[in-house]
Amino acid sequence: MNFEKEKKGCLNKIDRSKKGSIDKKIKELVDLINSLKDYYTTSSCSGRILLIKRPKSGKKCDVDFLLASHNNVSFKEIKSCLKNIPKQDLWFRQESMILHVACRTIENAQKILDLSTLTGFKHSGIITTRKKIIVEIIGSEQFDTIIAKHGRVFANDDHLSLLVDEANKKLEINNRKIKKFYNLVKSLKN
Amino acid sequence: MNFEKEKKGCLNKIDRSKKGSIDKKIKELVDLINSLKDYYTTSSCSGRILLIKRPKSGKKCDVDFLLASHNNVSFKEIKSCLKNIPKQDLWFRQESMILHVACRTIENAQKILDLSTLTGFKHSGIITTRKKIIVEIIGSEQFDTIIAKHGRVFANDDHLSLLVDEANKKLEINNRKIKKFYNLVKSLKN
Repeated sequence: MNFEKEKKGCLNKIDRSKKGSIDKKIKELVDLINSLKDYYTTSSCSGRILLIKRPKSGKKCDVDFLLASHNNVSFKEIKSCLKNIPKQDLWFRQESMILHVACRTIENAQKILDLSTLTGFKHSGIITTRKKIIVEIIGSEQFDTIIAKHGRVFANDDHLSLLVDEANKKLEINNRKIKKFYNLVKSLKN
Repeated sequence: MNFEKEKKGCLNKIDRSKKGSIDKKIKELVDLINSLKDYYTTSSCSGRILLIKRPKSGKKCDVDFLLASHNNVSFKEIKSCLKNIPKQDLWFRQESMILHVACRTIENAQKILDLSTLTGFKHSGIITTRKKIIVEIIGSEQFDTIIAKHGRVFANDDHLSLLVDEANKKLEINNRKIKKFYNLVKSLKN
């Protein structure tokens, strides 16, 4: 199948993500990339703050969220989520932006990778060159930590409040980098 | 310059890392990769547990470690590091293996990337195709969290102990994956 057909097929597909739509904060960037003749996006997330229940199985499909927010969170929100927690491991996690971009050629992939490096997305890379050439663009503003085990919360209120502050701060830096990357990607228009 | 010359030049260079030598836990894997005609390593770390002083500047060059261990750590070790801490942000961090591999061709890069995916190193990718083709192979067992701010420790002893347990557990999974990857990379010998 050629690149044009694949692109059309992918962009017309129903969004099968849990959320069912593209995050507002990354929509403009995704639309810009999809308007370029040599690129299209296959998945995206603008960055999130999560409270994650980790199952004993360790399997990703069994993971469940007590909270998933694409915006800043408050200490109050987090505390109210911790009122009745299950007897599982609970992780507080702040994730940065992640974007998968299909590219026509390796040269096209290298070009968008250069812009990604310039933005400060330092762990980005071409993750496959087989049927498709896919670049994973991933932010570096993220952290995660275990805060409860078997239903017992280990992080005290002051510490939780510090985690919330850090997560909100990093999410804001992440959002600024999305804008910076957007401005750099514009140069691929010509 | 051709691949052979670059490889010879790189492998004969003095090790300029802080540690000054290759970590024991990854040495066998590094030697195996360097024995293959189409690959050589340019940098490596087997995974670590760190106590990091984050400077106000946010600059990586200003970062300093209160502790850096390639092996499991004990609660006692961590506590003794926290006796006299500076008035800075302090992060507890467990890092997984990271390896940079120069490859002769994109096809060679894809082959080692496939083995990396098979091992479970899910964020690995080709990070440049310009002068050299470099694959970054990176583990997914890692986490980090802020534990002190302006010299005040926020994480209580129970929580610190939980962090130590998680870090040791993840480092062991990471070490098993290094062995799994080593066995898979052997298939590139022929």
